[in-house]
Amino acid sequence: MAKKPLNIGMVGYGFMGRAHSNAFSQAPHFFDLPFQPVLKAACARNAEKLKAFADQWGYQSTETDWRKLIERKDIDLIDIAASNDMHMEIAIAAAAAGKMIMCEKPLGRNSTESRKMVEAVETAKVANMVWYNYRRIPAVTLAKQFIDEGKLGKIFHYRAKFLQDWTISADLPQGGQGLWRLDAGMAGSGVTGDLLAHCIDTSLWLNGGIDKVVGMTETFIKERHHNLTGKTEKVEIDDASLFLARYDNGSLGNFEATRYARGHKALYTLEINGENASIFWDLHDLHRLQYFDHRDEGRSRGWRSIHVTDGDHPYMSKWWVPGLQIGYEHSFVHQAADFIEGLGSGISAAPTFREAMATDLVTDAVLKSARNGQWESAKS
Amino acid sequence: MAKKPLNIGMVGYGFMGRAHSNAFSQAPHFFDLPFQPVLKAACARNAEKLKAFADQWGYQSTETDWRKLIERKDIDLIDIAASNDMHMEIAIAAAAAGKMIMCEKPLGRNSTESRKMVEAVETAKVANMVWYNYRRIPAVTLAKQFIDEGKLGKIFHYRAKFLQDWTISADLPQGGQGLWRLDAGMAGSGVTGDLLAHCIDTSLWLNGGIDKVVGMTETFIKERHHNLTGKTEKVEIDDASLFLARYDNGSLGNFEATRYARGHKALYTLEINGENASIFWDLHDLHRLQYFDHRDEGRSRGWRSIHVTDGDHPYMSKWWVPGLQIGYEHSFVHQAADFIEGLGSGISAAPTFREAMATDLVTDAVLKSARNGQWESAKS
Amino acid sequence: MAKKPLNIGMVGYGFMGRAHSNAFSQAPHFFDLPFQPVLKAACARNAEKLKAFADQWGYQSTETDWRKLIERKDIDLIDIAASNDMHMEIAIAAAAAGKMIMCEKPLGRNSTESRKMVEAVETAKVANMVWYNYRRIPAVTLAKQFIDEGKLGKIFHYRAKFLQDWTISADLPQGGQGLWRLDAGMAGSGVTGDLLAHCIDTSLWLNGGIDKVVGMTETFIKERHHNLTGKTEKVEIDDASLFLARYDNGSLGNFEATRYARGHKALYTLEINGENASIFWDLHDLHRLQYFDHRDEGRSRGWRSIHVTDGDHPYMSKWWVPGLQIGYEHSFVHQAADFIEGLGSGISAAPTFREAMATDLVTDAVLKSARNGQWESAKS
Amino acid sequence: MAKKPLNIGMVGYGFMGRAHSNAFSQAPHFFDLPFQPVLKAACARNAEKLKAFADQWGYQSTETDWRKLIERKDIDLIDIAASNDMHMEIAIAAAAAGKMIMCEKPLGRNSTESRKMVEAVETAKVANMVWYNYRRIPAVTLAKQFIDEGKLGKIFHYRAKFLQDWTISADLPQGGQGLWRLDAGMAGSGVTGDLLAHCIDTSLWLNGGIDKVVGMTETFIKERHHNLTGKTEKVEIDDASLFLARYDNGSLGNFEATRYARGHKALYTLEINGENASIFWDLHDLHRLQYFDHRDEGRSRGWRSIHVTDGDHPYMSKWWVPGLQIGYEHSFVHQAADFIEGLGSGISAAPTFREAMATDLVTDAVLKSARNGQWESAKS
Repeated sequence: MAKKPLNIGMVGYGFMGRAHSNAFSQAPHFFDLPFQPVLKAACARNAEKLKAFADQWGYQSTETDWRKLIERKDIDLIDIAASNDMHMEIAIAAAAAGKMIMCEKPLGRNSTESRKMVEAVETAKVANMVWYNYRRIPAVTLAKQFIDEGKLGKIFHYRAKFLQDWTISADLPQGGQGLWRLDAGMAGSGVTGDLLAHCIDTSLWLNGGIDKVVGMTETFIKERHHNLTGKTEKVEIDDASLFLARYDNGSLGNFEATRYARGHKALYTLEINGENASIFWDLHDLHRLQYFDHRDEGRSRGWRSIHVTDGDHPYMSKWWVPGLQIGYEHSFVHQAADFIEGLGSGISAAPTFREAMATDLVTDAVLKSARNGQWESAKS
Repeated sequence: MAKKPLNIGMVGYGFMGRAHSNAFSQAPHFFDLPFQPVLKAACARNAEKLKAFADQWGYQSTETDWRKLIERKDIDLIDIAASNDMHMEIAIAAAAAGKMIMCEKPLGRNSTESRKMVEAVETAKVANMVWYNYRRIPAVTLAKQFIDEGKLGKIFHYRAKFLQDWTISADLPQGGQGLWRLDAGMAGSGVTGDLLAHCIDTSLWLNGGIDKVVGMTETFIKERHHNLTGKTEKVEIDDASLFLARYDNGSLGNFEATRYARGHKALYTLEINGENASIFWDLHDLHRLQYFDHRDEGRSRGWRSIHVTDGDHPYMSKWWVPGLQIGYEHSFVHQAADFIEGLGSGISAAPTFREAMATDLVTDAVLKSARNGQWESAKS
Repeated sequence: MAKKPLNIGMVGYGFMGRAHSNAFSQAPHFFDLPFQPVLKAACARNAEKLKAFADQWGYQSTETDWRKLIERKDIDLIDIAASNDMHMEIAIAAAAAGKMIMCEKPLGRNSTESRKMVEAVETAKVANMVWYNYRRIPAVTLAKQFIDEGKLGKIFHYRAKFLQDWTISADLPQGGQGLWRLDAGMAGSGVTGDLLAHCIDTSLWLNGGIDKVVGMTETFIKERHHNLTGKTEKVEIDDASLFLARYDNGSLGNFEATRYARGHKALYTLEINGENASIFWDLHDLHRLQYFDHRDEGRSRGWRSIHVTDGDHPYMSKWWVPGLQIGYEHSFVHQAADFIEGLGSGISAAPTFREAMATDLVTDAVLKSARNGQWESAKS
Repeated sequence: MAKKPLNIGMVGYGFMGRAHSNAFSQAPHFFDLPFQPVLKAACARNAEKLKAFADQWGYQSTETDWRKLIERKDIDLIDIAASNDMHMEIAIAAAAAGKMIMCEKPLGRNSTESRKMVEAVETAKVANMVWYNYRRIPAVTLAKQFIDEGKLGKIFHYRAKFLQDWTISADLPQGGQGLWRLDAGMAGSGVTGDLLAHCIDTSLWLNGGIDKVVGMTETFIKERHHNLTGKTEKVEIDDASLFLARYDNGSLGNFEATRYARGHKALYTLEINGENASIFWDLHDLHRLQYFDHRDEGRSRGWRSIHVTDGDHPYMSKWWVPGLQIGYEHSFVHQAADFIEGLGSGISAAPTFREAMATDLVTDAVLKSARNGQWESAKS
């Protein structure tokens, strides 16, 4: 009684191409899914590297033109793991061809692009999702459970940071292989779309809508050698981006992202302070959730370091035994599994393109505020 | 060969009256000082409580009118540990009487008051200092050494928070004994002057001047019972205050203070990210400094948790043996010792009134920006 | 140019059957291996559960009799993931049939069994390895690098603990599905063979041979319901086991394992103190290595929390990007990859059966000492 | 209404002389005591250094012969802060003179000396106490409360370590000023009496009597220059001492102390695992107690990091406000305060000489076992 296959066409073989391929490869080993994901075809321009990638992951075929991939009848789902500048075009074409679409974040390079993508998938009525994977780190999902159960009570504060240090050297070039995130044309923006977008997506999920923001950005290294032009060019992306926010629920937000925080490789942290309880989470120790409950007896109150590896923690009954942690890649496995389960149940797994577009409205407002020094609405 | 005495007149017997009294009592036990501090007179309005306080600390006499205290010939130094609304009047009178002055922070309720206080002590040419005690937590002083030695290199980011949770209950009244910090008339502002002022003072010391800010404040509980009027009154202070900043040196600042962060009693944290190294400090574990040095060999790089208790750490040779931590109160002992040593050397210990006024210019700018939604200069 | 296959026959589908299957499944996705591992056949007595397991992992066939599995010509390697009481018999038969063998730890239920297994594989000259997976947690491998490079200098102390809390309830039965670790006949011993064996293997690898030990064991719950007999039976395994040790290099060892340490799910910790540096590692945060180097400048010395996720850390260049942690299961992937690479290079990956037998000599000595109260040699 | 004085004669001006002087100086500033401690006389052989010490702390007089001190009618209490070899003689003489006695730990150099001291104070019926100060670190006292309230339930495990690294250098001499702890004649033993004694005292208080032990000691550096003889001499003290223990209540003990643990200055840690809850404490962060309660709801269970600074924590209502930590010296202040309160209430503060002697019986048994390799009774 073999399961019905879900044939995947993957565009891109970089960091995200690997993460998504692993997700589809591992999901059926640990989850009972209504469909069997099949790595049907991988697609990229560089045929040689593509071949190596396809061999490593067991893709059954390859394509060097994404338009060909979309035309193939034996592909059910297009997974977009290419650079940001290609998201919109591929997604609109795939939707027109009736394919399901999973797209790496951010959805578009800005909300204008994102809106067109939303329209495309909604018009085509195809299943769609954006890979905001951090929602499915078990500790973050547990935080969501606690909030939904009312453990925190009224929320007063939301704080998030995403700190890295990989672009501090002035000798690092911009553009080209592995460095398109420094090229504004390909990336859309710098840390705002790359890092803050993650913080915002999680925040919208956990704490609801953001009403307005005031922001500040900075580009510390003003010029860098550009790999594609071979010349020193002005750097157009933001190296650091900070903003203050007011939420619809009356709470206050404090967000910051940078690639100039020496000592932090990928320190995504979030903290929420509620009337009765608070939570804190940190990507560098992603398997733990810090939780403080004021209702504990006074003398024994303290921040609890929850080792999120027990069978009653989100997703964890699928993995090993209590005390044994999973890692970063598993958040993608969970997202792939949830998407496939959603195909079976008919309930779309979040965030859909529409849900993910809300993040782009916020990042657009942050960038606009950083330019004009004003508070800006995060809703339009 | 007895030391020349330094006769102290203390105004106030509350939390800070005790902290300052302890500082003067303990400093000569651990430091070799050029003068012997003498607890000459304590001053407050409530004679009964004043008597108990004076007995506990060994004050030789009491006064119930601070004007009388200032008139006394046998008093060398007036220490102002009264509520903020009394700082200016006492300081100006004390300066006019030629007394040295130590004043609890913030200097005035706003920079207008502070400026008058600065003028008074500078006209009178009396020694003066403001009790921004956190500069003299050994771990913070060590951070200053590291920065001054260039260990961090160019600074990109400064982050500071001061989080508390003691006013979350709507049943807490405002005003009166122990609660004047909730009364805008007495305190000047809420967390901006109470908590952010500490963050700003340390920051100005460690990272130099702040050019401009954009801020946001909130009062979560809009009305509270007022102990003095006996009625429910509008709450005029800020419960939370956040701001973004641009420093003169090009770095970016992110500041936040609140009394609505469940789980934090007095979490003052600061982090500085430099080109080569970063530091982090946390008042809840004040005896540790976190330090990351990128110049360490790659595989063994990591945040170092420095247990600041060795003989070569600031102030620590005066205390016990390596591994044995000191606490909060010791920062005041250090400040008293430094002030008295400064009297001997003729070099004023910082921050003087003038230096402390810089903090009030920033807090004024934050409050103004919070009202008008604009970026404001932090220099005037 | 397809790689030559390495056909695997897996015995057991429990916790370890899954961990090993995942290892063989994932290794070729991340490592460039000289052979392609193929999940050829899974073997267990319960045909129904076996079928589900084989389907989930993609095994090409199943066997319900391990003797049949060994007879198959199309199997290159027998992987023993069955309960301890079956290790010896299967291994000896597999060796006789010329199969490579990978065996879950501990090798035998005691050193007498282990010795026979060593003789079998050495006589048959077949590749062999024991799944002491913790050697290949990147942070532990990094510790090994540091020691081998002489960073620590002369070693004075080795400390290891393995603390769990899953058998505290007196209502937990012994024996049967998932509980054979409480049955002395099946397991050989309690925490000594289950948990201390891990601590000892890592220790012998990092710090060299143990000369002698003195130990103590305890069984806190004396009788438990037995699932197989249906009666209350005496518990024959050790619930807790502690021992002191003297190493060949003059250092002192302190080991402890228990299943009665409330609050710890799988807290395997190790600490090594050397003349110049010390290291500490903790399975609950397995992606970090704590490192203290006394040669750092005095004021800035501190324990470094190394986030072992950089490309120059062991194995990590194969996975994601700096800052993104891997988990428990990856240690098995690394071990599978190393074994297969060893087949290509002709250099056996450690620990072989012979190397793993050294651990059983120590555990035997600990159990003997616990019975007679004497120091016992750990070498015979 | 001045309080009746308690006139103190202090013997010794070293590390402990300072700690005890500070305790008597500070106790009345923070506690309401039935007697007013008065620093009446300080005593030591070196008149010059004694004078400086007496001046710094405000002692009213000095004596260079402890026998003279004991003869003085105006001294109520003799506080013995001299090296271990002088404890017995001074204590017996002081008791004979009817003085109250407070003695630095360990009581005698061995239990034979201690027993004579117990007999002396009990015959003389004088108030007596040993300065095992760690009982009065608020976090440790809180642990005692939790245990006494039954929060932990049946105890299974007790673990304690005291790790230092100050004697690793072979160039460090033994004997003489500040180094008598390396001289077996003066100290009695090495880390066993110096460090393990602390661990044992706390343990007997928290977990009750120890039945038997098996131990191991080591002297890593066999010979050192001796400051008093001027020659290289055999080192007679133990550099490291470890033992396993069985408690009267059926729990198992694991103890270790060393001065060769690189990276640890004074890492005294203790952990207790009970049926329902566990606690952990660490002198390097002495203001925190780690607490795990299994009765918390499953998903939110975690080790709580209790910041022991609230008004309902032991002793803390006497100090500052929540969130502000105290340090090492405060444990002595608490002990002085408790002793003086005990004089008022008639209830002796613990540990008395008799209670402290129990620790010496354990250390004697450890040292004996280390010599003969046998389990030894810790009760005689």
